[in-house]
Amino acid sequence: MANVGKLTLLHLNNSTSQRILWLLEELGIDYELKLHKRIHDRAPSELKETHPMGKAPQLILADGRVLIESSCIAKYLIDTYDTENKFKGDGGRNDALRDQMLSDFIASSMSTNFIVGVLFLALASRTPFFVRPLVSGLWKAMRAGYWDDDVDKQLKFIEAELEGQDYLMGASPGRPDFLLTFVYDNFHQRRLIDASKYPVAKAWRERCEARPAWKRSLEKGNGYDLSDFDG
Amino acid sequence: MANVGKLTLLHLNNSTSQRILWLLEELGIDYELKLHKRIHDRAPSELKETHPMGKAPQLILADGRVLIESSCIAKYLIDTYDTENKFKGDGGRNDALRDQMLSDFIASSMSTNFIVGVLFLALASRTPFFVRPLVSGLWKAMRAGYWDDDVDKQLKFIEAELEGQDYLMGASPGRPDFLLTFVYDNFHQRRLIDASKYPVAKAWRERCEARPAWKRSLEKGNGYDLSDFDG
Repeated sequence: MANVGKLTLLHLNNSTSQRILWLLEELGIDYELKLHKRIHDRAPSELKETHPMGKAPQLILADGRVLIESSCIAKYLIDTYDTENKFKGDGGRNDALRDQMLSDFIASSMSTNFIVGVLFLALASRTPFFVRPLVSGLWKAMRAGYWDDDVDKQLKFIEAELEGQDYLMGASPGRPDFLLTFVYDNFHQRRLIDASKYPVAKAWRERCEARPAWKRSLEKGNGYDLSDFDG
Repeated sequence: MANVGKLTLLHLNNSTSQRILWLLEELGIDYELKLHKRIHDRAPSELKETHPMGKAPQLILADGRVLIESSCIAKYLIDTYDTENKFKGDGGRNDALRDQMLSDFIASSMSTNFIVGVLFLALASRTPFFVRPLVSGLWKAMRAGYWDDDVDKQLKFIEAELEGQDYLMGASPGRPDFLLTFVYDNFHQRRLIDASKYPVAKAWRERCEARPAWKRSLEKGNGYDLSDFDG
Protein backbone atom coordinates (compact mmCIF):
# COMPACT_ATOMS: atom_id res chain seq x y z
CA MET A 1 0.00 0.00 0.00
CA ALA A 2 3.09 2.24 -0.08
CA ASN A 3 2.18 3.81 -3.37
CA VAL A 4 -1.44 4.70 -2.77
CA GLY A 5 -1.88 8.25 -4.02
CA LYS A 6 1.32 8.15 -5.98
CA LEU A 7 1.71 8.66 -9.70
CA THR A 8 3.69 6.21 -11.80
CA LEU A 9 5.44 7.22 -15.00
CA LEU A 10 6.24 4.47 -17.49
CA HIS A 11 9.30 5.85 -19.22
CA LEU A 12 11.21 4.73 -22.30
CA ASN A 13 14.81 5.64 -23.15
CA ASN A 14 15.42 7.99 -26.11
CA SER A 15 11.76 8.87 -26.25
CA THR A 16 9.09 11.44 -25.87
CA SER A 17 8.53 10.55 -22.22
CA GLN A 18 11.73 12.44 -21.34
CA ARG A 19 9.70 15.67 -21.49
CA ILE A 20 7.17 14.27 -18.98
CA LEU A 21 10.01 13.25 -16.69
CA TRP A 22 11.28 16.82 -16.93
CA LEU A 23 7.85 18.21 -16.05
CA LEU A 24 7.53 15.88 -13.06
CA GLU A 25 10.90 17.14 -11.84
CA GLU A 26 9.82 20.76 -12.33
CA LEU A 27 6.69 20.12 -10.26
CA GLY A 28 8.78 18.63 -7.48
CA ILE A 29 6.18 16.01 -6.60
CA ASP A 30 6.64 12.46 -5.47
CA TYR A 31 6.26 9.83 -8.19
CA GLU A 32 7.34 6.36 -9.08
CA LEU A 33 9.44 5.89 -12.19
CA LYS A 34 9.44 2.68 -14.19
CA LEU A 35 12.27 2.58 -16.68
CA HIS A 36 11.79 0.64 -19.91
CA LYS A 37 14.36 0.06 -22.64
CA ARG A 38 13.86 -0.14 -26.38
CA ILE A 39 14.51 -3.49 -28.02
CA HIS A 40 15.79 -3.08 -31.58
CA ASP A 41 14.59 0.53 -31.40
CA ARG A 42 11.01 -0.51 -30.58
CA ALA A 43 9.06 -0.17 -27.36
CA PRO A 44 9.18 -3.43 -25.35
CA SER A 45 6.02 -5.52 -25.17
CA GLU A 46 5.57 -5.06 -21.41
CA LEU A 47 4.21 -1.57 -22.16
CA LYS A 48 1.13 -3.34 -23.57
CA GLU A 49 0.30 -4.70 -20.13
CA THR A 50 -1.01 -1.33 -19.02
CA HIS A 51 -2.29 0.12 -22.32
CA PRO A 52 -3.22 -1.59 -25.62
CA MET A 53 -1.18 0.90 -27.70
CA GLY A 54 1.96 -0.28 -25.85
CA LYS A 55 3.80 3.04 -25.96
CA ALA A 56 5.42 5.53 -23.59
CA PRO A 57 4.81 7.78 -21.80
CA GLN A 58 2.02 6.29 -19.74
CA LEU A 59 1.02 7.97 -16.51
CA ILE A 60 -0.76 5.72 -14.05
CA LEU A 61 -2.88 7.66 -11.59
CA ALA A 62 -3.44 6.62 -7.99
CA ASP A 63 -6.86 5.19 -8.86
CA GLY A 64 -5.37 3.01 -11.61
CA ARG A 65 -6.48 5.15 -14.53
CA VAL A 66 -3.87 5.12 -17.29
CA LEU A 67 -3.22 8.30 -19.26
CA ILE A 68 -1.51 8.28 -22.65
CA GLU A 69 -0.42 11.12 -24.98
CA SER A 70 2.22 13.58 -23.79
CA SER A 71 0.02 16.61 -24.31
CA CYS A 72 -2.79 15.19 -22.19
CA ILE A 73 -0.40 13.98 -19.50
CA ALA A 74 1.30 17.38 -19.33
CA LYS A 75 -2.05 19.17 -19.06
CA TYR A 76 -3.21 16.82 -16.32
CA LEU A 77 0.00 17.25 -14.33
CA ILE A 78 -0.01 21.05 -14.58
CA ASP A 79 -3.76 21.36 -13.88
CA THR A 80 -3.47 19.08 -10.85
CA TYR A 81 -0.10 19.75 -9.25
CA ASP A 82 0.98 23.26 -10.30
CA THR A 83 -0.63 24.82 -7.26
CA GLU A 84 1.58 27.92 -7.46
CA ASN A 85 0.63 28.55 -11.11
CA LYS A 86 4.24 28.53 -12.27
CA PHE A 87 3.64 26.62 -15.50
CA LYS A 88 0.24 27.90 -16.64
CA GLY A 89 1.45 31.04 -18.39
CA ASP A 90 2.17 34.37 -16.77
CA GLY A 91 -0.86 36.31 -18.00
CA GLY A 92 -1.39 38.79 -20.80
CA ARG A 93 -1.07 37.00 -24.11
CA ASN A 94 0.21 33.92 -22.26
CA ASP A 95 -3.26 32.61 -21.46
CA ALA A 96 -4.93 29.18 -21.48
CA LEU A 97 -6.09 29.51 -25.09
CA ARG A 98 -2.54 30.18 -26.25
CA ASP A 99 -1.37 27.20 -24.17
CA GLN A 100 -3.91 24.99 -25.94
CA MET A 101 -3.18 26.33 -29.43
CA LEU A 102 0.60 26.10 -29.20
CA SER A 103 0.40 22.67 -27.55
CA ASP A 104 -1.80 21.36 -30.36
CA PHE A 105 0.41 22.99 -33.00
CA ILE A 106 3.48 21.28 -31.55
CA ALA A 107 1.88 17.90 -30.79
CA SER A 108 0.07 17.66 -34.14
CA SER A 109 1.48 19.78 -36.98
CA MET A 110 5.13 20.00 -35.93
CA SER A 111 5.29 16.40 -34.73
CA THR A 112 4.03 15.12 -38.05
CA ASN A 113 6.96 16.73 -39.81
CA PHE A 114 9.61 15.26 -37.57
CA ILE A 115 7.99 11.83 -37.76
CA VAL A 116 8.03 11.95 -41.56
CA GLY A 117 11.69 13.01 -41.42
CA VAL A 118 12.61 10.25 -38.99
CA LEU A 119 10.73 7.74 -41.14
CA PHE A 120 12.83 8.53 -44.17
CA LEU A 121 16.04 8.40 -42.13
CA ALA A 122 14.96 4.97 -40.87
CA LEU A 123 14.01 3.79 -44.36
CA ALA A 124 17.38 4.88 -45.71
CA SER A 125 19.21 2.99 -42.97
CA ARG A 126 17.11 -0.16 -43.21
CA THR A 127 16.65 -0.73 -46.92
CA PRO A 128 19.18 -2.73 -48.97
CA PHE A 129 22.09 -0.57 -50.15
CA PHE A 130 20.96 -0.57 -53.79
CA VAL A 131 17.60 0.92 -52.82
CA ARG A 132 19.09 3.71 -50.73
CA PRO A 133 19.75 6.16 -53.58
CA LEU A 134 16.07 5.99 -54.44
CA VAL A 135 14.97 6.53 -50.84
CA SER A 136 17.34 9.50 -50.69
CA GLY A 137 15.95 10.76 -53.98
CA LEU A 138 12.36 10.56 -52.71
CA TRP A 139 13.29 12.26 -49.47
CA LYS A 140 15.10 15.04 -51.39
CA ALA A 141 12.06 15.51 -53.64
CA MET A 142 9.77 15.69 -50.62
CA ARG A 143 12.03 18.17 -48.88
CA ALA A 144 12.08 20.34 -51.98
CA GLY A 145 8.34 19.86 -52.57
CA TYR A 146 7.04 20.87 -49.16
CA TRP A 147 8.88 19.57 -46.10
CA ASP A 148 11.74 22.07 -45.82
CA ASP A 149 9.43 24.98 -46.44
CA ASP A 150 6.83 23.77 -43.94
CA VAL A 151 9.37 23.11 -41.17
CA ASP A 152 10.99 26.49 -41.84
CA LYS A 153 7.61 28.22 -41.48
CA GLN A 154 6.92 26.28 -38.28
CA LEU A 155 10.23 27.17 -36.67
CA LYS A 156 9.87 30.82 -37.72
CA PHE A 157 6.38 30.85 -36.22
CA ILE A 158 7.78 29.43 -32.97
CA GLU A 159 10.53 32.05 -32.98
CA ALA A 160 7.97 34.82 -33.47
CA GLU A 161 5.95 33.40 -30.56
CA LEU A 162 9.08 33.47 -28.36
CA GLU A 163 9.63 37.14 -29.18
CA GLY A 164 10.28 39.13 -26.02
CA GLN A 165 9.98 36.25 -23.58
CA ASP A 166 12.13 33.35 -22.38
CA TYR A 167 9.58 30.59 -22.92
CA LEU A 168 6.48 30.11 -25.06
CA MET A 169 4.32 30.71 -22.00
CA GLY A 170 6.35 33.59 -20.56
CA ALA A 171 8.98 33.73 -17.84
CA SER A 172 8.67 30.00 -17.04
CA PRO A 173 8.04 27.05 -19.33
CA GLY A 174 4.45 25.94 -19.90
CA ARG A 175 2.91 22.93 -21.59
CA PRO A 176 3.98 23.94 -25.13
CA ASP A 177 7.58 24.35 -23.95
CA PHE A 178 7.63 20.90 -22.39
CA LEU A 179 6.17 19.42 -25.55
CA LEU A 180 8.47 21.28 -27.92
CA THR A 181 11.70 19.88 -26.49
CA PHE A 182 11.25 16.43 -28.03
CA VAL A 183 10.15 17.85 -31.39
CA TYR A 184 13.04 20.30 -31.51
CA ASP A 185 15.51 17.63 -30.38
CA ASN A 186 14.40 15.36 -33.22
CA PHE A 187 14.91 18.09 -35.79
CA HIS A 188 18.23 19.13 -34.30
CA GLN A 189 19.89 15.94 -33.07
CA ARG A 190 18.96 14.04 -36.23
CA ARG A 191 20.28 16.93 -38.35
CA LEU A 192 17.00 17.46 -40.12
CA ILE A 193 17.44 21.22 -39.78
CA ASP A 194 20.30 23.69 -39.62
CA ALA A 195 19.79 24.87 -36.03
CA SER A 196 21.96 27.96 -36.57
CA LYS A 197 19.21 29.32 -38.84
CA TYR A 198 16.90 29.54 -35.82
CA PRO A 199 18.90 31.32 -33.09
CA VAL A 200 15.86 32.24 -30.98
CA ALA A 201 14.75 28.59 -30.81
CA LYS A 202 18.33 27.51 -30.11
CA ALA A 203 18.61 29.95 -27.20
CA TRP A 204 15.24 28.74 -25.89
CA ARG A 205 16.47 25.12 -25.99
CA GLU A 206 19.65 26.06 -24.11
CA ARG A 207 17.52 27.79 -21.50
CA CYS A 208 15.53 24.57 -20.99
CA GLU A 209 18.73 22.48 -20.85
CA ALA A 210 20.15 24.72 -18.14
CA ARG A 211 17.23 24.18 -15.78
CA PRO A 212 18.08 21.96 -12.81
CA ALA A 213 14.89 19.95 -13.34
CA TRP A 214 15.91 19.08 -16.92
CA LYS A 215 19.30 17.94 -15.67
CA ARG A 216 17.66 15.80 -12.98
CA SER A 217 15.38 14.27 -15.62
CA LEU A 218 18.43 13.19 -17.61
CA GLU A 219 20.02 11.68 -14.51
CA LYS A 220 16.88 9.76 -13.56
CA GLY A 221 16.07 8.55 -17.08
CA ASN A 222 17.86 5.74 -18.86
CA GLY A 223 19.28 7.58 -21.84
CA TYR A 224 18.24 10.35 -24.20
CA ASP A 225 20.25 10.38 -27.39
CA LEU A 226 18.19 10.71 -30.53
CA SER A 227 21.22 10.86 -32.80
CA ASP A 228 22.08 7.31 -31.77
CA PHE A 229 18.77 5.89 -32.83
CA ASP A 230 17.62 5.31 -36.38
CA GLY A 231 13.86 5.16 -36.22
CA MET B 1 -19.69 46.81 -38.10
CA ALA B 2 -22.14 44.05 -39.00
CA ASN B 3 -19.82 41.29 -37.90
CA VAL B 4 -18.71 42.55 -34.52
CA GLY B 5 -19.03 39.65 -32.13
CA LYS B 6 -19.22 37.15 -34.92
CA LEU B 7 -16.87 34.27 -35.53
CA THR B 8 -15.36 33.68 -38.96
CA LEU B 9 -14.29 30.25 -40.16
CA LEU B 10 -11.77 30.09 -42.97
CA HIS B 11 -12.67 26.82 -44.65
CA LEU B 12 -10.92 24.78 -47.34
CA ASN B 13 -12.57 22.18 -49.56
CA ASN B 14 -11.65 18.50 -49.01
CA SER B 15 -9.96 19.33 -45.74
CA THR B 16 -9.88 19.02 -42.04
CA SER B 17 -11.95 22.18 -41.56
CA GLN B 18 -15.08 20.22 -42.57
CA ARG B 19 -15.18 18.87 -39.00
CA ILE B 20 -15.15 22.42 -37.58
CA LEU B 21 -17.94 23.41 -39.96
CA TRP B 22 -19.89 20.42 -38.62
CA LEU B 23 -19.29 21.50 -35.02
CA LEU B 24 -20.40 25.08 -35.78
CA GLU B 25 -23.61 23.66 -37.25
CA GLU B 26 -24.14 21.45 -34.19
CA LEU B 27 -23.75 24.47 -31.91
CA GLY B 28 -26.31 26.39 -33.94
CA ILE B 29 -24.53 29.70 -33.56
CA ASP B 30 -24.17 32.54 -36.00
CA TYR B 31 -20.86 32.64 -37.89
CA GLU B 32 -19.36 33.85 -41.09
CA LEU B 33 -17.98 31.28 -43.50
CA LYS B 34 -15.17 32.06 -45.93
CA LEU B 35 -14.78 29.35 -48.52
CA HIS B 36 -11.33 28.72 -49.98
CA LYS B 37 -10.43 26.28 -52.74
CA ARG B 38 -7.30 24.19 -53.15
CA ILE B 39 -5.06 25.03 -56.09
CA HIS B 40 -3.26 21.93 -57.39
CA ASP B 41 -4.23 20.23 -54.13
CA ARG B 42 -2.51 22.88 -52.01
CA ALA B 43 -4.03 25.55 -49.79
CA PRO B 44 -4.25 28.89 -51.62
CA SER B 45 -1.85 31.67 -50.60
CA GLU B 46 -4.60 33.97 -49.30
CA LEU B 47 -4.74 31.79 -46.16
CA LYS B 48 -1.35 33.28 -45.28
CA GLU B 49 -2.89 36.73 -44.93
CA THR B 50 -4.41 35.80 -41.58
CA HIS B 51 -1.86 33.25 -40.26
CA PRO B 52 1.76 32.60 -41.26
CA MET B 53 1.22 28.84 -41.54
CA GLY B 54 -1.34 29.50 -44.31
CA LYS B 55 -3.58 26.53 -43.55
CA ALA B 56 -7.23 25.81 -42.75
CA PRO B 57 -9.15 25.76 -40.52
CA GLN B 58 -8.59 29.19 -39.05
CA LEU B 59 -11.16 30.60 -36.65
CA ILE B 60 -11.11 34.37 -36.36
CA LEU B 61 -12.61 35.56 -33.09
CA ALA B 62 -14.56 38.78 -32.71
CA ASP B 63 -11.51 40.55 -31.25
CA GLY B 64 -9.39 39.58 -34.26
CA ARG B 65 -7.51 36.75 -32.56
CA VAL B 66 -6.81 33.93 -35.00
CA LEU B 67 -6.99 30.34 -33.77
CA ILE B 68 -5.38 27.47 -35.65
CA GLU B 69 -5.37 23.69 -35.03
CA SER B 70 -8.68 21.80 -35.19
CA SER B 71 -8.34 20.40 -31.68
CA CYS B 72 -7.85 23.85 -30.14
CA ILE B 73 -10.64 25.38 -32.23
CA ALA B 74 -13.04 22.59 -31.27
CA LYS B 75 -12.20 22.99 -27.58
CA TYR B 76 -12.66 26.75 -27.75
CA LEU B 77 -16.02 26.44 -29.51
CA ILE B 78 -17.38 23.84 -27.10
CA ASP B 79 -16.04 25.62 -24.00
CA THR B 80 -17.51 28.93 -25.14
CA TYR B 81 -20.77 28.15 -26.92
CA ASP B 82 -21.98 24.78 -25.64
CA THR B 83 -24.04 26.40 -22.91
CA GLU B 84 -26.32 23.38 -22.59
CA ASN B 85 -23.37 20.99 -22.11
CA LYS B 86 -24.41 18.77 -25.01
CA PHE B 87 -20.90 18.17 -26.36
CA LYS B 88 -18.77 18.00 -23.21
CA GLY B 89 -19.41 14.34 -22.41
CA ASP B 90 -22.34 12.94 -20.47
CA GLY B 91 -20.63 12.13 -17.20
CA GLY B 92 -19.28 8.93 -15.68
CA ARG B 93 -16.28 7.82 -17.65
CA ASN B 94 -17.05 10.49 -20.28
CA ASP B 95 -15.27 13.27 -18.41
CA ALA B 96 -12.98 16.14 -19.38
CA LEU B 97 -9.81 14.09 -18.94
CA ARG B 98 -11.10 11.44 -21.35
CA ASP B 99 -12.04 14.23 -23.78
CA GLN B 100 -8.48 15.56 -23.64
CA MET B 101 -6.83 12.14 -23.92
CA LEU B 102 -8.90 10.89 -26.83
CA SER B 103 -8.62 14.24 -28.62
CA ASP B 104 -4.83 14.17 -28.31
CA PHE B 105 -4.71 10.53 -29.37
CA ILE B 106 -6.71 11.29 -32.50
CA ALA B 107 -5.05 14.61 -33.38
CA SER B 108 -1.51 13.34 -32.76
CA SER B 109 -1.02 9.58 -32.93
CA MET B 110 -3.80 8.61 -35.32
CA SER B 111 -3.32 11.65 -37.56
CA THR B 112 0.34 10.84 -38.01
CA ASN B 113 -0.57 7.46 -39.47
CA PHE B 114 -3.03 8.78 -42.00
CA ILE B 115 -0.63 11.53 -43.04
CA VAL B 116 2.12 8.97 -43.66
CA GLY B 117 -0.36 6.88 -45.66
CA VAL B 118 -1.51 9.87 -47.73
CA LEU B 119 2.11 10.86 -48.31
CA PHE B 120 2.93 7.52 -49.89
CA LEU B 121 -0.23 7.60 -52.01
CA ALA B 122 0.80 11.06 -53.20
CA LEU B 123 4.38 9.96 -53.85
CA ALA B 124 3.15 7.01 -55.90
CA SER B 125 0.92 9.26 -58.00
CA ARG B 126 3.50 11.98 -58.52
CA THR B 127 6.73 10.13 -59.21
CA PRO B 128 7.69 9.06 -62.76
CA PHE B 129 6.13 5.73 -63.71
CA PHE B 130 9.42 3.81 -63.55
CA VAL B 131 9.92 4.85 -59.90
CA ARG B 132 6.43 3.79 -58.81
CA PRO B 133 7.17 0.10 -58.22
CA LEU B 134 9.85 1.15 -55.78
CA VAL B 135 7.58 3.59 -53.97
CA SER B 136 4.96 0.84 -53.76
CA GLY B 137 7.60 -1.54 -52.49
CA LEU B 138 8.69 0.87 -49.75
CA TRP B 139 5.08 1.49 -48.75
CA LYS B 140 4.41 -2.26 -48.64
CA ALA B 141 7.49 -2.78 -46.47
CA MET B 142 6.40 -0.01 -44.13
CA ARG B 143 2.91 -1.40 -43.89
CA ALA B 144 4.28 -4.83 -43.07
CA GLY B 145 6.91 -3.36 -40.71
CA TYR B 146 4.66 -1.27 -38.48
CA TRP B 147 1.93 0.79 -40.17
CA ASP B 148 -0.81 -1.82 -40.63
CA ASP B 149 -0.31 -3.14 -37.13
CA ASP B 150 -0.30 0.31 -35.55
CA VAL B 151 -3.44 1.48 -37.38
CA ASP B 152 -5.17 -1.78 -36.52
CA LYS B 153 -4.35 -1.28 -32.83
CA GLN B 154 -5.58 2.31 -33.01
CA LEU B 155 -8.90 1.42 -34.60
CA LYS B 156 -9.41 -1.45 -32.17
CA PHE B 157 -8.68 0.92 -29.28
CA ILE B 158 -11.27 3.37 -30.68
CA GLU B 159 -13.79 0.54 -31.03
CA ALA B 160 -13.20 -0.51 -27.42
CA GLU B 161 -13.70 3.10 -26.33
CA LEU B 162 -17.03 3.20 -28.23
CA GLU B 163 -18.21 0.07 -26.40
CA GLY B 164 -21.73 0.56 -25.07
CA GLN B 165 -22.20 4.13 -26.27
CA ASP B 166 -23.04 5.90 -29.53
CA TYR B 167 -20.15 8.37 -29.51
CA LEU B 168 -16.73 8.57 -27.89
CA MET B 169 -18.11 11.04 -25.36
CA GLY B 170 -21.43 9.29 -24.77
CA ALA B 171 -24.91 9.88 -26.16
CA SER B 172 -23.82 12.92 -28.18
CA PRO B 173 -20.57 13.61 -30.02
CA GLY B 174 -17.79 15.43 -28.18
CA ARG B 175 -14.48 16.91 -29.28
CA PRO B 176 -12.83 13.53 -30.03
CA ASP B 177 -15.79 12.54 -32.24
CA PHE B 178 -15.56 15.77 -34.24
CA LEU B 179 -11.83 15.26 -34.65
CA LEU B 180 -12.04 11.59 -35.57
CA THR B 181 -14.27 12.10 -38.64
CA PHE B 182 -11.46 13.52 -40.79
CA VAL B 183 -8.98 10.89 -39.65
CA TYR B 184 -11.41 8.03 -40.23
CA ASP B 185 -12.47 9.47 -43.60
CA ASN B 186 -8.85 9.56 -44.74
CA PHE B 187 -8.32 5.93 -43.79
CA HIS B 188 -11.60 4.86 -45.33
CA GLN B 189 -12.10 7.04 -48.41
CA ARG B 190 -8.49 6.59 -49.50
CA ARG B 191 -8.78 2.82 -48.98
CA LEU B 192 -5.95 2.69 -46.50
CA ILE B 193 -7.98 0.30 -44.34
CA ASP B 194 -10.62 -2.35 -44.85
CA ALA B 195 -13.51 -0.59 -43.08
CA SER B 196 -15.51 -3.81 -42.79
CA LYS B 197 -12.92 -5.04 -40.27
CA TYR B 198 -14.03 -2.28 -37.88
CA PRO B 199 -17.84 -2.49 -37.73
CA VAL B 200 -18.17 -0.48 -34.52
CA ALA B 201 -16.24 2.44 -36.01
CA LYS B 202 -18.21 2.13 -39.25
CA ALA B 203 -21.50 2.33 -37.37
CA TRP B 204 -20.19 5.32 -35.42
CA ARG B 205 -19.31 7.10 -38.69
CA GLU B 206 -22.75 6.40 -40.12
CA ARG B 207 -24.29 7.84 -36.96
CA CYS B 208 -22.28 11.06 -37.48
CA GLU B 209 -23.24 11.19 -41.18
CA ALA B 210 -26.91 10.91 -40.31
CA ARG B 211 -26.89 13.99 -38.10
CA PRO B 212 -28.66 16.99 -39.64
CA ALA B 213 -25.76 19.25 -38.65
CA TRP B 214 -23.28 17.08 -40.59
CA LYS B 215 -25.54 17.23 -43.63
CA ARG B 216 -25.80 21.02 -43.33
CA SER B 217 -22.00 21.24 -43.08
CA LEU B 218 -21.69 19.39 -46.40
CA GLU B 219 -24.22 21.73 -48.03
CA LYS B 220 -22.48 24.86 -46.75
CA GLY B 221 -18.94 23.69 -47.55
CA ASN B 222 -17.42 23.61 -51.00
CA GLY B 223 -16.71 19.94 -51.42
CA TYR B 224 -15.54 17.04 -49.25
CA ASP B 225 -14.23 14.14 -51.29
CA LEU B 226 -10.95 12.74 -50.08
CA SER B 227 -10.91 9.93 -52.64
CA ASP B 228 -10.67 12.52 -55.40
CA PHE B 229 -7.54 14.13 -54.05
CA ASP B 230 -4.07 12.70 -54.17
CA GLY B 231 -2.17 14.44 -51.41
